[in-house]
Amino acid sequence: MSLLVVGSVALDTVTTPHGHRENVLGGSCSFFSVGASILTRVRMVGAIGDDFPEEHLSLFRKRNIDLAGLERVRGGKTFRWAGRYQPRMDTRETLWTDLNVLGRFKPELPTEFRETEFLFLANGDPVTQTYVLDQMKNPRFVLLDTMNLWIDTAREKLLALLSRVDGLILNDEEARSLAHDENLISAMRTIRRLGPKILIVKKGEHGAVLLHDDRYFAVPAYPLVEVKDPTGAGDSFASGVMGRVAVTGDLSLAGLKSAMVFGTVVASFCVEDFSLGGLVGIAEADVERRVTDFTDFIRL
Amino acid sequence: MSLLVVGSVALDTVTTPHGHRENVLGGSCSFFSVGASILTRVRMVGAIGDDFPEEHLSLFRKRNIDLAGLERVRGGKTFRWAGRYQPRMDTRETLWTDLNVLGRFKPELPTEFRETEFLFLANGDPVTQTYVLDQMKNPRFVLLDTMNLWIDTAREKLLALLSRVDGLILNDEEARSLAHDENLISAMRTIRRLGPKILIVKKGEHGAVLLHDDRYFAVPAYPLVEVKDPTGAGDSFASGVMGRVAVTGDLSLAGLKSAMVFGTVVASFCVEDFSLGGLVGIAEADVERRVTDFTDFIRL
Repeated sequence: MSLLVVGSVALDTVTTPHGHRENVLGGSCSFFSVGASILTRVRMVGAIGDDFPEEHLSLFRKRNIDLAGLERVRGGKTFRWAGRYQPRMDTRETLWTDLNVLGRFKPELPTEFRETEFLFLANGDPVTQTYVLDQMKNPRFVLLDTMNLWIDTAREKLLALLSRVDGLILNDEEARSLAHDENLISAMRTIRRLGPKILIVKKGEHGAVLLHDDRYFAVPAYPLVEVKDPTGAGDSFASGVMGRVAVTGDLSLAGLKSAMVFGTVVASFCVEDFSLGGLVGIAEADVERRVTDFTDFIRL
Repeated sequence: MSLLVVGSVALDTVTTPHGHRENVLGGSCSFFSVGASILTRVRMVGAIGDDFPEEHLSLFRKRNIDLAGLERVRGGKTFRWAGRYQPRMDTRETLWTDLNVLGRFKPELPTEFRETEFLFLANGDPVTQTYVLDQMKNPRFVLLDTMNLWIDTAREKLLALLSRVDGLILNDEEARSLAHDENLISAMRTIRRLGPKILIVKKGEHGAVLLHDDRYFAVPAYPLVEVKDPTGAGDSFASGVMGRVAVTGDLSLAGLKSAMVFGTVVASFCVEDFSLGGLVGIAEADVERRVTDFTDFIRL
């Protein structure tokens, strides 16, 4: 089944204990598209500037990603983000952000994109996310991502959007902030009452928790002996989840449990290298192999 | 099969966002004994002073705990600890510690205790832990607990002990410190090479990870909507693990996976109230019920 992502395409400058990279490919849309492309065909909606290197477009095309919704803004510059991770890499500091073309991002979906069945609204302004959702013709499953910035500054818009999507994915800090509750489990219940039937809370190196109706399911992170760069882990996790459900069409608890495992595995490849380096060479068989290993790791 | 614990019996003064308690029953030995007593008979080795309230001894006796190894030191005072938890309760500050009788703790095991098959050496000075281990006659399984204090100040003694025990249980911070490695998975491999065939790393609200020979197994924490006091969570986790293996005698990977689930469940009862309040009223059937729920929570 078809899968659409709307989000940011970025040029990132990243420092981790394992190295420093300048102006490398990043952004939620990039991580999600390339991650999900391992499992299924992806349609991308985003914006780039004149400065966006042709090699990155080649990479997307090589992964069979449909770029009909990727707008190159004449005279514009690509969104840029710079961040530095602490030694343990469980926290990071944003050094600077240049919104550039993302500041005026008002995506018009290509006609055929509006019929897409699975939609991932990557982290972004809820106004833009709503604008995209309004263009969709009866999607089967919409997963929304957000962050503290919008929880703090655009709460009303976000709440209105929450009542219209099927699922919400965010990290534990954001979940606590959205629910005004330090206890993650009760915070998750509170958020469920705001609308989304499905809630996924990402906890970085500690895995993720799913709440599907009233049922919880938790997975640890994939056990890796080396993590080089956590950037994109959340978006590649989401890409594995959405890629899996777009392939199986199974939105039952069992289907979503399997999707959580695929999310974990795709994210595990992502963090093993900088930028998209960990994902570009990965085939479906590599994912299947780690899914088998990981299933063993968590199975009683 | 028989189960022995050597550790501290304490009077704790604890402050959490849910309240404040003064001079309540605490200590690794208390949490472990009462936790494991839900599943099996426990032998306790520890020391108390003249000030130790009779009601706590009644509580231990009611749980059928063998107190032949609990020494009351005439003219001595019971070990005391005071701590305060941060709002999220994932970190705590020790306000003060009075070692009292624990400062001269040199336990002589009752003769019949020396034949115990399962031994838990709760957190303590490696010299004392070694002194106890030396008195044991061929125990079947010895699990050791430790903390940063001993890793930093008694490393050589601890390493010598590590080569003599079957398993080590410690938290993630301590594992990283012991292995000098920020990556938890590679830190666990390093520790395994120091001797213990079985390694359990506790991650508080994020669950625990087992390394058994070369196989990992991870469990999340039990999903609780209210945690009142995390004190004793680690020792009650260990009590569920050891209680379970003492009952089944199964030290295979499958047996230990099951034990990790029991540990998680016993710890979940512990943190729902202050001091031993969450554990004292719990029967085996209560544990079995949560084991079923939890199994559902983590099963693919």
